[in-house]
Amino acid sequence: MEKILRDIAGVIKGDIIGNGDVSIIGINSIDKASAGEISFYFDNRYRDYLEKTKASALIVSSHEEGYKGPQVVVTDPKLAYAKAAALFAPPVSRFDGISRNAFIEETGMTGKNVSIYPNVYVGKEAVIGDNVTLFPGTFIGDRVRIGDRTVIYPNVSIMRDCIVGEDVIIHAGCVIGSDGFGYAQDGSEHVKVPQLGIVQIDDNVEIGANTTIDRAANGRTWIQKGVKMDNLIQIGHNVMIGENSILVAHTAIAGSVRVGRNVVIGGKVGIVDHIDIGDGAVIGSGAGVRKSIAPGETVLGDPTMPHRHWMRVSSLIARLPEINDRLRDLEKRVKGSGKDN
Amino acid sequence: MEKILRDIAGVIKGDIIGNGDVSIIGINSIDKASAGEISFYFDNRYRDYLEKTKASALIVSSHEEGYKGPQVVVTDPKLAYAKAAALFAPPVSRFDGISRNAFIEETGMTGKNVSIYPNVYVGKEAVIGDNVTLFPGTFIGDRVRIGDRTVIYPNVSIMRDCIVGEDVIIHAGCVIGSDGFGYAQDGSEHVKVPQLGIVQIDDNVEIGANTTIDRAANGRTWIQKGVKMDNLIQIGHNVMIGENSILVAHTAIAGSVRVGRNVVIGGKVGIVDHIDIGDGAVIGSGAGVRKSIAPGETVLGDPTMPHRHWMRVSSLIARLPEINDRLRDLEKRVKGSGKDN
Amino acid sequence: MEKILRDIAGVIKGDIIGNGDVSIIGINSIDKASAGEISFYFDNRYRDYLEKTKASALIVSSHEEGYKGPQVVVTDPKLAYAKAAALFAPPVSRFDGISRNAFIEETGMTGKNVSIYPNVYVGKEAVIGDNVTLFPGTFIGDRVRIGDRTVIYPNVSIMRDCIVGEDVIIHAGCVIGSDGFGYAQDGSEHVKVPQLGIVQIDDNVEIGANTTIDRAANGRTWIQKGVKMDNLIQIGHNVMIGENSILVAHTAIAGSVRVGRNVVIGGKVGIVDHIDIGDGAVIGSGAGVRKSIAPGETVLGDPTMPHRHWMRVSSLIARLPEINDRLRDLEKRVKGSGKDN
Repeated sequence: MEKILRDIAGVIKGDIIGNGDVSIIGINSIDKASAGEISFYFDNRYRDYLEKTKASALIVSSHEEGYKGPQVVVTDPKLAYAKAAALFAPPVSRFDGISRNAFIEETGMTGKNVSIYPNVYVGKEAVIGDNVTLFPGTFIGDRVRIGDRTVIYPNVSIMRDCIVGEDVIIHAGCVIGSDGFGYAQDGSEHVKVPQLGIVQIDDNVEIGANTTIDRAANGRTWIQKGVKMDNLIQIGHNVMIGENSILVAHTAIAGSVRVGRNVVIGGKVGIVDHIDIGDGAVIGSGAGVRKSIAPGETVLGDPTMPHRHWMRVSSLIARLPEINDRLRDLEKRVKGSGKDN
Repeated sequence: MEKILRDIAGVIKGDIIGNGDVSIIGINSIDKASAGEISFYFDNRYRDYLEKTKASALIVSSHEEGYKGPQVVVTDPKLAYAKAAALFAPPVSRFDGISRNAFIEETGMTGKNVSIYPNVYVGKEAVIGDNVTLFPGTFIGDRVRIGDRTVIYPNVSIMRDCIVGEDVIIHAGCVIGSDGFGYAQDGSEHVKVPQLGIVQIDDNVEIGANTTIDRAANGRTWIQKGVKMDNLIQIGHNVMIGENSILVAHTAIAGSVRVGRNVVIGGKVGIVDHIDIGDGAVIGSGAGVRKSIAPGETVLGDPTMPHRHWMRVSSLIARLPEINDRLRDLEKRVKGSGKDN
Repeated sequence: MEKILRDIAGVIKGDIIGNGDVSIIGINSIDKASAGEISFYFDNRYRDYLEKTKASALIVSSHEEGYKGPQVVVTDPKLAYAKAAALFAPPVSRFDGISRNAFIEETGMTGKNVSIYPNVYVGKEAVIGDNVTLFPGTFIGDRVRIGDRTVIYPNVSIMRDCIVGEDVIIHAGCVIGSDGFGYAQDGSEHVKVPQLGIVQIDDNVEIGANTTIDRAANGRTWIQKGVKMDNLIQIGHNVMIGENSILVAHTAIAGSVRVGRNVVIGGKVGIVDHIDIGDGAVIGSGAGVRKSIAPGETVLGDPTMPHRHWMRVSSLIARLPEINDRLRDLEKRVKGSGKDN
């Protein structure tokens, strides 16, 4: 995949400083790039590499004196990098057509140009859209609908009646539509509350490996358009996650939580049930969210606090032994002064 | 699935106020119910919906003035809802018989009326009970035993020699009987300690999606009757979980922990190895359990504290900056008063 | 599998006290051993069992008066136990050859004496080494290489181009080489950053069930020789984990973290991106690591602190109500003394 720098600059809408006719055969990070590769610079931690890199061209946000090769100046080098990298990314592997080793129930329907690998199961009345790719070991339950161009990686289970939109990517091992966790008590026994709803995943969602999303008790668990989720996340029943929100790995959201749009939730966050996370809120990694978060707020900690407050609290926690010593010292002095008086 | 309200009231042992001849075609939450559906009311947060709901009948714990349709009064509306919902729940999907695309080793045995989907593997001398359902991609290892009526959802792996009881539900992606995590040191190298035991899961257990339960080093890891586990839980080797205990998502229990009966463990809890959690204990979500918990105790936090104590501590953590300011203020005054003297 | 005690002592390089001709048919923990089994003693918590055990022989670090049967004295009883248990462990189950129900792409290559179960998929130009075992439901992507004697348990997904070394064990449900979590912003939309790198797993690594390891954005995510990982761990893109490090369950490591050699990371630890964990560092369970850790340091807490410091802090957190009371008391006295003056 050889490209001319000028053409890459066209795709990422950048201005070339230097020789635009350089031939580029790949893309790599500034510390690892070899001759022939284009790289990018937007993170100060890599400043030293401006001089040291072997990259044949660099994507930058303004001209960098330190680098001697041709540069492509763009408004947003990270976005430009994403677009340039897409030029060099291998396409998603596809099986040619529908494997004879896949099992599709008679009433299951598949669209045009699908790629269905061996060991796939497609249930009754399931509908698979055009250009969909189903990797080996995927289970598509009865009446599930999968939108056009969606890619389902290996060993994913999508349970009955769930709806997956277009251009969705579901990474390996995910479970979509497992039963929500609900029981009624009958003495000391737990009686299962039937989980009658579904999971609905809208267009352009990406879901990380081994993540689980439970079906609603009634109605739907709803992942809206453009949401991006990392690996090993747990989404409880009836949760709603608004458009373009981002969830980092190992986060767990309990039942009936409503997450707004453009929310960012860090890694290893826990959120209790039945609360609201407002649009644009940011929740720092490791937080234990036990009450609703207002729109636009940035919180950390357990229990959650505003960012600046948490910074102080967190440094004071480490200073607790000192605080205790100072307190003891004061107690002695006050007691002493009491005696003296 | 049309039912008459009077018949539903019979199943849930309730008293009808109003017209018992209403026809009911489904069940839904009070905020989402349509005409023709029955709903339920037991959570104050939904009080406003008593007047607004479109439900054609309501399950309640006492007569609700706000709602004008027929009501079914029961002792425990949540339990009654669970039983009523079961009337409308679709049965678990089944494959008709044993798929020719399943692979059952010659010495594997299957009971009456089993449902074995394509892409299932059943190992040597494994025993599958009557009316069991094995979804696609399940792996049943050598000599595994599965009790009657148990449902194993897709892509579950049950490793060699493990025992699963009757009426068990194992959700998609679970791993039962992976090796426990044990090594001996040989200099800086880790020598694997062979994990010779099994996992035993008793009757009426339910296990959430992508949960992992390690086999014992020796003897068994034991999940007793009626235990309910949520998604993405980790159970270490030789753990024992007593009858009817409940574990919420993303919890991890290290090796050789003994959990009593009727224990409730919240989400994202971590429990260190070789400790005891007493019968009826309650562990709040996010807790880091580093010592044994007495029977009946309710604890939270890391390290764990009794509930009321944690409430105070948790509010004081957020007030640490104020505490520090007050301390500094006192120091100035005492120093000042010292000087004055 | 009957063995003579003298032969076992030879394997574990121990000295026999008592009758070396005893016949041994199995191995078990000291509390559960039956007659005919050998056991071991190295954990004080089991001292009472020295007299009570039914074991026919005991592995010990020095002669134990309390136990009356033959003893094998070794330098390191835990290591000796691991080696003795290996004598009694059943071999990993194998399918005889390559199942006709496995699907191997024409250009996929398999070595000598492989065991490939039904429902396995091996992609284009993939290379499977000698004596490898692939359990049902494993997905081996295009151009993946698997080293000799490696065992891949059921329903594991290894994505395209990843490299797995020799004598590696990957437990069920793992995902190796899923896309790293990276997006560039384009207004409120997230543009996927193509993940062009791979995962490289070196020799003698063991990876627990349902663990996920993301492929690098560029270059490789690298798990070095002898690393042992527990279940449900998340490893972000471009992470490097040094030789013989140990990671306990439910830990999550964000992108580009460098973990040194012989590091021990406890359960449920979170580590933020782009930091270094020095050789030989120890991170206690539940820690939230937000800055680099120096070689050899032992840390706990969130934020992390040295071990002894954390012990004090952690006990003072629980004493915050008392600290607050003492402070209030002082305030009254000082105010009072102020008034008096």
